[in-house]
Amino acid sequence: RVNGDRLWDSLMDMAKIGPGIAGGNNRQTLTDADAQGRSLFKKWCDDAGLTMGVDRMGTMFATRPGTDPDALPVYVGSHLDTQPTGGKYDGVLGVLAALEVVRTMNDLGIKTKHPIVVTNWTNEEGARFAPAMLASGVFAGVHSLEFAYNRRDPEGNLFGDELKRIGWVGDEQVGARKMHAYFEYHIEQGPILEAEEKQIGVVTHCQGLWWLEFTLTGKEAHTGSTPMNLRVNAGLAMARILEMVQGVAMGEQPGAVGGVGQVFFSPNSRNVLPGKVVFTVDIRSPDKEKLDRMRAKIEAKAPEITDALGVGCSIEAIGHFEPITFDPKLVTSVREAAERLGYSHMNIISGAGHDACWAAKVAPATMVMCPCVGGLSHNEAEEISKEWAMAGADVLFHAVVETAEI
Amino acid sequence: RVNGDRLWDSLMDMAKIGPGIAGGNNRQTLTDADAQGRSLFKKWCDDAGLTMGVDRMGTMFATRPGTDPDALPVYVGSHLDTQPTGGKYDGVLGVLAALEVVRTMNDLGIKTKHPIVVTNWTNEEGARFAPAMLASGVFAGVHSLEFAYNRRDPEGNLFGDELKRIGWVGDEQVGARKMHAYFEYHIEQGPILEAEEKQIGVVTHCQGLWWLEFTLTGKEAHTGSTPMNLRVNAGLAMARILEMVQGVAMGEQPGAVGGVGQVFFSPNSRNVLPGKVVFTVDIRSPDKEKLDRMRAKIEAKAPEITDALGVGCSIEAIGHFEPITFDPKLVTSVREAAERLGYSHMNIISGAGHDACWAAKVAPATMVMCPCVGGLSHNEAEEISKEWAMAGADVLFHAVVETAEI
Ligand SMILES: NC(=O)NCCC(=O)O
Ligand SMILES: NC(=O)NCCC(=O)O
Repeated sequence: RVNGDRLWDSLMDMAKIGPGIAGGNNRQTLTDADAQGRSLFKKWCDDAGLTMGVDRMGTMFATRPGTDPDALPVYVGSHLDTQPTGGKYDGVLGVLAALEVVRTMNDLGIKTKHPIVVTNWTNEEGARFAPAMLASGVFAGVHSLEFAYNRRDPEGNLFGDELKRIGWVGDEQVGARKMHAYFEYHIEQGPILEAEEKQIGVVTHCQGLWWLEFTLTGKEAHTGSTPMNLRVNAGLAMARILEMVQGVAMGEQPGAVGGVGQVFFSPNSRNVLPGKVVFTVDIRSPDKEKLDRMRAKIEAKAPEITDALGVGCSIEAIGHFEPITFDPKLVTSVREAAERLGYSHMNIISGAGHDACWAAKVAPATMVMCPCVGGLSHNEAEEISKEWAMAGADVLFHAVVETAEI
Repeated sequence: RVNGDRLWDSLMDMAKIGPGIAGGNNRQTLTDADAQGRSLFKKWCDDAGLTMGVDRMGTMFATRPGTDPDALPVYVGSHLDTQPTGGKYDGVLGVLAALEVVRTMNDLGIKTKHPIVVTNWTNEEGARFAPAMLASGVFAGVHSLEFAYNRRDPEGNLFGDELKRIGWVGDEQVGARKMHAYFEYHIEQGPILEAEEKQIGVVTHCQGLWWLEFTLTGKEAHTGSTPMNLRVNAGLAMARILEMVQGVAMGEQPGAVGGVGQVFFSPNSRNVLPGKVVFTVDIRSPDKEKLDRMRAKIEAKAPEITDALGVGCSIEAIGHFEPITFDPKLVTSVREAAERLGYSHMNIISGAGHDACWAAKVAPATMVMCPCVGGLSHNEAEEISKEWAMAGADVLFHAVVETAEI
């Protein structure tokens, strides 16, 4: 079993970096706070005797050697970046539990055939730079390095410039590493495990996603002196599209979600009808047909809405991953570890996207989940108990050691 | 008649300060660009032999003396501040035409019994600091100085601090000046004069306004892993309120408008359902009953919408003026001036709010309007012709000189 107190202390120490405004964290990717978090993590890896490699996307790979020089490593990790108003565990738990796995192996003097690589992927959240899971996407060959470097944050800063600015451009070619297996431990971010009173989620699948970025073009005009019938109201069109997306998602229940988290009005002045409204629709489903049907419905209905208002509409797919089926052998090893350790468990489908989804493209991959209070995540109030954190780390430890072979 | 070329040249010179991104201006109140615009205007006033007074709201009063030491001045002005993506004429035309009136009086050696005071009111637009017409509102006793100083821009800066920062806190008590009359010349900002092919709008009334700031409180949560039935979706509530406001305004046609120009999502991240959405509803009508009925309908229906979604809703009235009837004698003097000069004219109700609305609380007041292309304003593409600008300035000149008495 892992050292739960040590794991918890590390979580709390990391949470001191980039504090939020309501008890959580704002340690967005490639900010100064991210750089500080990386330094602390590197120090901990050094202390654990790991060797750090960094690729051109800034992803950190900390290696504990194996006994067989020809054996590919088992990768274990997640991400240290957070949402602007994020929790202390989303991603961080997965990285620090991976570290705890090797710390425990050190304590117990366990040697494995395959090396273990504790991994911190850059820009998993996609909050500052869309899409999410950017570095693992480049690693898996889904995106080019050039594409990634040219992503812009809302202030117009380039991903490539910001990575250089914080000093974490590594020299490794992205994706050059080959994996024997990839494990990721994460909080559920949903309500199921808590409601079902299970300690462990055995993650069999991850639902797929489309991010559809809408740019609506209206006519900037005075809110007072522009008669109703002369308005080209991009804000009203946005409102109608939000309602339509809600309807499309409700029409595909169960097993589908749809919503909007980000809206920019321009010029965003109280007495100016917006000339431009940009927003991103987020739709997901574990069922590829359903997911693609939702996209098709939205793309068919949106122009009807905007045409009726004379508003211009362009839609760009700025994020996508298909529903993922995780590796059956690794899934079984997670389930058996939970069983062996006496933790209650159930199969679960991940509602959120994870670096494991891209890793699954290039290696056998799976995930372990623990509950979170009220299913709440992407919220500073995100909470888990030390016991929950520890149970998942124990399962991770067992599954990783089994896969890395003593 | 005024010197149309000189007026136009001054308009073009002022437009060089705080250029926009599409041919218009971004010279928002109390920015460095506003300070530059004020300096240029002051220089022009000095050159015209005017004496500058500044009050504690930063409003600029440039006096041309009268012949009767006991006669109250005739005030003529508007505002030099612009929207973030504003036009070159909204407000500016009124200030620089007032300057052109005294320049022409100087050229012709005209002396008047009443002094003439060319006026530049601070923060008419209300874009950076709500409400609009802030300085004239304090002047008229509608707001306290303390209220005004404590207004915040979206970055959290205080009006009072920014006024001090740009160096335009004057020493005059706000509202201490007494007016014989107030004239304001402005572009229509609507489509009527152009459509009716009239050169001059004789402004008889101004419609009233409510700005209702909504703060919707949802539950920040993950867009992917939060099931539809567990969402407390403040963004969806906002969409439904926008549609409802549109319905309320359409239900009061003709003679009413309603819309939303400003929306803030928080945290505004693509994969986070917003925990908070703040937006401002702008409703207007020349009919007080209609205006207040719209407000009542909106305030009754909004909680039904938010309650159904479990979203919290608070509504604050952050801007208001009642429909205004301008002074009949001054209105007649404007109409007769247009008639005398041979300009086509019609009565018109101002769709936008103006400093004249607050001045009308403390003095006889009225306005002159000229058409603008396509009725477009609060848009960098706002346009007028030199001939239109000149015709209105001629009418202003005649009405002002008549009222100031030779
Ligand atoms: N786990 C997580 O929140 N990832 C961000 C990508 C997503 O939106 O699913
Ligand atoms: N004239 C003008 O645009 N004033 C701003 C106040 C308003 O929104 O009516």
